[in-house]
Amino acid sequence: MTLQGNALIIQSGGPTAVINQSLAGIMAASRDYPDKIHNVYGAYHGLHGVLYENLLDLSCEESSVWRTIAVSPGAALGSARIKPRHSDLDRIFEVFTAHKIKFVFYNGGNDSAEAAQLIREEANRRHYEVRILHIPKTIDNDLMVTNHCPGYGSVAKVVSHIIAGDDLDNRSFFNSVKINVVMGRHAGWIAAATAIAKKGHIDIEDDDEVGPHLIYLPEVEFNEKKFLGDVQKTYNRIGRATIVVAEGIADQLSEDKFAGEVDEFGNALLSSSGKLGDYLSNLIKKNLVYNSAFGKLRCRADTLGYLQRSLAGMSSPTDQADAFLVGSMGVHYMMKGESDKMVTLVRIPGEHYKCETSLCDLKLVAQKTKLMPRSMINKEENGVTEEFYQYALPLAGSVPEIHALKPQHLKKKLMDYIRPEK
Amino acid sequence: MTLQGNALIIQSGGPTAVINQSLAGIMAASRDYPDKIHNVYGAYHGLHGVLYENLLDLSCEESSVWRTIAVSPGAALGSARIKPRHSDLDRIFEVFTAHKIKFVFYNGGNDSAEAAQLIREEANRRHYEVRILHIPKTIDNDLMVTNHCPGYGSVAKVVSHIIAGDDLDNRSFFNSVKINVVMGRHAGWIAAATAIAKKGHIDIEDDDEVGPHLIYLPEVEFNEKKFLGDVQKTYNRIGRATIVVAEGIADQLSEDKFAGEVDEFGNALLSSSGKLGDYLSNLIKKNLVYNSAFGKLRCRADTLGYLQRSLAGMSSPTDQADAFLVGSMGVHYMMKGESDKMVTLVRIPGEHYKCETSLCDLKLVAQKTKLMPRSMINKEENGVTEEFYQYALPLAGSVPEIHALKPQHLKKKLMDYIRPEK
Repeated sequence: MTLQGNALIIQSGGPTAVINQSLAGIMAASRDYPDKIHNVYGAYHGLHGVLYENLLDLSCEESSVWRTIAVSPGAALGSARIKPRHSDLDRIFEVFTAHKIKFVFYNGGNDSAEAAQLIREEANRRHYEVRILHIPKTIDNDLMVTNHCPGYGSVAKVVSHIIAGDDLDNRSFFNSVKINVVMGRHAGWIAAATAIAKKGHIDIEDDDEVGPHLIYLPEVEFNEKKFLGDVQKTYNRIGRATIVVAEGIADQLSEDKFAGEVDEFGNALLSSSGKLGDYLSNLIKKNLVYNSAFGKLRCRADTLGYLQRSLAGMSSPTDQADAFLVGSMGVHYMMKGESDKMVTLVRIPGEHYKCETSLCDLKLVAQKTKLMPRSMINKEENGVTEEFYQYALPLAGSVPEIHALKPQHLKKKLMDYIRPEK
Repeated sequence: MTLQGNALIIQSGGPTAVINQSLAGIMAASRDYPDKIHNVYGAYHGLHGVLYENLLDLSCEESSVWRTIAVSPGAALGSARIKPRHSDLDRIFEVFTAHKIKFVFYNGGNDSAEAAQLIREEANRRHYEVRILHIPKTIDNDLMVTNHCPGYGSVAKVVSHIIAGDDLDNRSFFNSVKINVVMGRHAGWIAAATAIAKKGHIDIEDDDEVGPHLIYLPEVEFNEKKFLGDVQKTYNRIGRATIVVAEGIADQLSEDKFAGEVDEFGNALLSSSGKLGDYLSNLIKKNLVYNSAFGKLRCRADTLGYLQRSLAGMSSPTDQADAFLVGSMGVHYMMKGESDKMVTLVRIPGEHYKCETSLCDLKLVAQKTKLMPRSMINKEENGVTEEFYQYALPLAGSVPEIHALKPQHLKKKLMDYIRPEK
């Protein structure tokens, strides 16, 4: 007999701009299986909702609701960063049994994959029949096997648009060094995506002029001396610099003052602190040799914060489509009997972006991190290669079209000016 | 005889997302007066370019160039934060004379109006015939007389979209308090604009649920005890809070550690530091009484930084049009003989947004700051009134359409869960 019962959707970890597209995808595809999936429930705030039996009845929502929720950032069901403790497992299966949960969609990153695996193993031990699929979600783009992760394309779009404008803002001033700290603890995918800003420039032949000029990734050993040398070289060439660093490089610095709170998975809080930016900014202020004829050194640092994953109205259409796809395909796979796997995105080679889905074993994903391959990192280890652009441009879905003036300087008619102090 | 000669455009102070629209407006209208305006020059990096005779020949650029530059953030001519010293005045008029500058467009904020006034007075003293108009530009929206300032609409759009998404991100977690520090030293126009985020929500009847819940403006005395009381009340009502503070409230705090560099106009650097956010965040962490059954308190602070004024691809169409308008009308006014004035935006009352231009005396603008009127601040002094929405919504030009799920909780079937420590 075919498995029948209720489905449960769990949103977990940090939200993305398109996490609700996956939710909408699951809701849409679930309607194709009325004989197997009786009701679809949502865990209210992830595993917290399961433990405390806080479940949402999603089947009673009108289907039109999901169209607008799909384009809204933030986890519509509520999220949590809870790791199931051994002592929680009894309770989880009590709740599953009481509510006839037979299908579980765990939407999250590699920590969630680990949680899904724990629940799976316990289900086997108890001979509780349940199918579990992991639906990938993470702005970090660091899940194994899948070509990319839903959530990444939108953050790539947001940070590249931010840096495109920020570089023009920086260009407005003399002696201006700007540091931008972006998310990414172990992998530099988000930092690398800021390079997309370069591709929006019209009519600039000398690519060197266009920022971001330097990008520092956690995959590469961070060396303060090399960093200062890179900044000095950029300053010497063009009189300014737009720099991007992944927050994860903080782990490599001798100062341990960057560490903050720790969650249940042992991840330290790096965002929501300006400390790394301030540290690097002070390093530059102390060490950069600059031309004071153009005024004081202007060194600024911004930490981009949570807006990277949640900016309303600026998500990538490609990312939205992919997020919907992994959700809906998750339902179809499960109804064919699949379980204990993650839905993956498989890129079809060709001139135009095309993507299909497949499945991979959960254990290939749980607790693992996909770093950027060396072939996408330039040989100076402070930027990306063309291979990265080919990978990331279609995911971000759009490039900010911008244009900087190529100055035509007027011939001088006067003697040089020495500005008096007063 | 009519005045003839070359025109000079000066971009000054902090860039906006639409500062180059005004430049494009001046360039476009200048072509209507080939007999009066011979060439149009740009000061390369504001007053710095004038002093050091670094002028750009803008007349030689193809007219199509300005269309793409117009939509790019950052000061295309380069900006500066230089105040003309008494000792600089000789040099300024040497440069004006050498390059036959007869028409000056000073594009900036109230500091630039002051600089324009200084140059005006010196021109009179020397009987140097020159017309000077101030073209308003500032994200702060704090210039007197004009209904609003070009640059403000775009920052209003950017921050409202950011906060709309951020509030949904915040809503994803239990016990979550999020602080966002936005620009605005003396006036709260930018902080107030984040309230526009509320207007994008579909289908939420209870407006209380939707953030930003609390907005703190420099116009109102900041009181830590009242602040904590406000946050506690919001937490008690909905279990979380999305807070916006204008950076300017730092000036009111007893701690003087928020002060940083000072520019030539005496303005202290408030942006590009996470200190205010960290301070308020610690205040909340120390004092908020929260329900630990929902987990730990999650308190985060982001300082939005320079992207507020420079986010590529997200400027307000209304703001773009207004910025172009003040530039082009500046040329038309000047060719009619007007000088020593600022171009103002005059809002035409009516259901749909309509704007005209007029002129006002420079001295009504220089060194003055237009604060938010009390009628736009709510009586609790932590938010805005309907009057503000009517003022700001058309300027931002768009509202992020978002939707949060109204949870339908499933009836519980089990006993309450007490989670073991391990």
